[in-house]
Amino acid sequence: MEKTLLLTISYDGRPFSGWQRQPSRRTVQGELEEALSEILRRPVKVDGCSRTDAGVHALGQCASFSGEIKIPTENLAYALNNRLPGSIRIVECEEKPAGFHARFNSRGKTYLYRITTGPMKDPFRRDHVYHVTRPLDTERMRVAAGLIEGKHDFACFQAAGGQPRQTTVRTIYRLEVEERPWAPFSDMGLIGSAPAAGEAGRGSAGGESCGEEPAAAGREIRLHVTGDGFLYNMVRIITGTLVDVGEGKLAPEDIPAILAGGDRTRAGHTAPARGLYLARIYY
Amino acid sequence: MEKTLLLTISYDGRPFSGWQRQPSRRTVQGELEEALSEILRRPVKVDGCSRTDAGVHALGQCASFSGEIKIPTENLAYALNNRLPGSIRIVECEEKPAGFHARFNSRGKTYLYRITTGPMKDPFRRDHVYHVTRPLDTERMRVAAGLIEGKHDFACFQAAGGQPRQTTVRTIYRLEVEERPWAPFSDMGLIGSAPAAGEAGRGSAGGESCGEEPAAAGREIRLHVTGDGFLYNMVRIITGTLVDVGEGKLAPEDIPAILAGGDRTRAGHTAPARGLYLARIYY
Repeated sequence: MEKTLLLTISYDGRPFSGWQRQPSRRTVQGELEEALSEILRRPVKVDGCSRTDAGVHALGQCASFSGEIKIPTENLAYALNNRLPGSIRIVECEEKPAGFHARFNSRGKTYLYRITTGPMKDPFRRDHVYHVTRPLDTERMRVAAGLIEGKHDFACFQAAGGQPRQTTVRTIYRLEVEERPWAPFSDMGLIGSAPAAGEAGRGSAGGESCGEEPAAAGREIRLHVTGDGFLYNMVRIITGTLVDVGEGKLAPEDIPAILAGGDRTRAGHTAPARGLYLARIYY
Repeated sequence: MEKTLLLTISYDGRPFSGWQRQPSRRTVQGELEEALSEILRRPVKVDGCSRTDAGVHALGQCASFSGEIKIPTENLAYALNNRLPGSIRIVECEEKPAGFHARFNSRGKTYLYRITTGPMKDPFRRDHVYHVTRPLDTERMRVAAGLIEGKHDFACFQAAGGQPRQTTVRTIYRLEVEERPWAPFSDMGLIGSAPAAGEAGRGSAGGESCGEEPAAAGREIRLHVTGDGFLYNMVRIITGTLVDVGEGKLAPEDIPAILAGGDRTRAGHTAPARGLYLARIYY
């Protein structure tokens, strides 16, 4: 029967040249359409909500498609996950009313950006966070974030090369700077385990979480950005700007003038793709 | 001046064909020796404590070497980290007495093995944990673990293909089964963030940690194994055996007979390399 389906998709962006289908390149959309075409035994194209760049990750990308779909909706996610590479997972598959479109029906999105600070970066996170060796003043970053929230002309945070826009005015509903202590391997949860009673283990190598403070302690900072729409590289440029504020290269008080000037060169650097996650889309 | 140094090394095992240098293959030892040779401007060979297999990770591998080392010890880790790929990090570099050897001086090691359970695996962890879709009975696993701890002939947990051993008797000081709730992306720490007051966000896609229970909830299980020495694939076979117990394919009460029989085919399956981490070496 004729159905319209919405897929929620997570992916590790590292192995791909972005979301959007391209000839001769491995893309998330390409892999998804290939798997769907095999299952449904006809060519299938999907409409993705957001075109994530090469190296950008997703927890909740959305894509819609419609047509004759003979497989029960509740089996499709399972069938797709059996065919897709392990770097792409279908989180959810839902039926939607005829005419539903993943991009046109979207009301807003949340992005997550992950940063770690400290003398040593975690090798397991090298393609999934932005590691900064200098400490960041998150209080100043929060002041700057408060000045970025709201409805503004965000032209100063737009990179060249995106689609021409009728307007660069957008609304950032929320820009949150979350921070916690962090050290490499702190998510491994090692239990202190000396080989024999009374004999101490060797140093604190490996980030033991029980008792000893790891030698290479730093911070993990997460930016949560929710808005009604985003210009090209806007979250990465906002992130780079906040990092520049955290490092003292820019002041929070500079933000209103940067916004008013509409000039990309007055804002901060563009943070790398690898720390960015499309977290959630709102319908 | 003539020095003996001990390096503590962490690495993501995925891009490499294991620790041990091999012609025509990318290995951790190969990359480390190349970087050291560049810095010290002479050929350098290191002695690693453990030969981790392809795909096995390390948080605290150790390697020693000696000779004329003109660079100050406290600068060497930094110089190495500038040259090594991001998948390998020097955690520590210490001077040791002449004659110190990373393998011969070692008194024991701890390995960590990471397992997740649930209907959907985390794409970001696909090369770093062993994902099992069926739930595991960790209470039964703990009973079995208690019967594996201690001094035993572990021939039943030894794979073919390793070095011939004078004796297969070893002591496992500790075999701990740690468990916690888990869902894909639960380490991302998403804050619930609906776009406007009073409007609910869309479902629970993406594993929100604030308020809503994620739809695809499972468990994370960590095995911590500390022993005086390990046979070939011993930790992975013990892990597979415990997973078989957790799935009900084996019973905890089977363990003493499996140990006594010394027969690999009576023990469980070999868990994959990607979930294994050499956590710490004791001197």
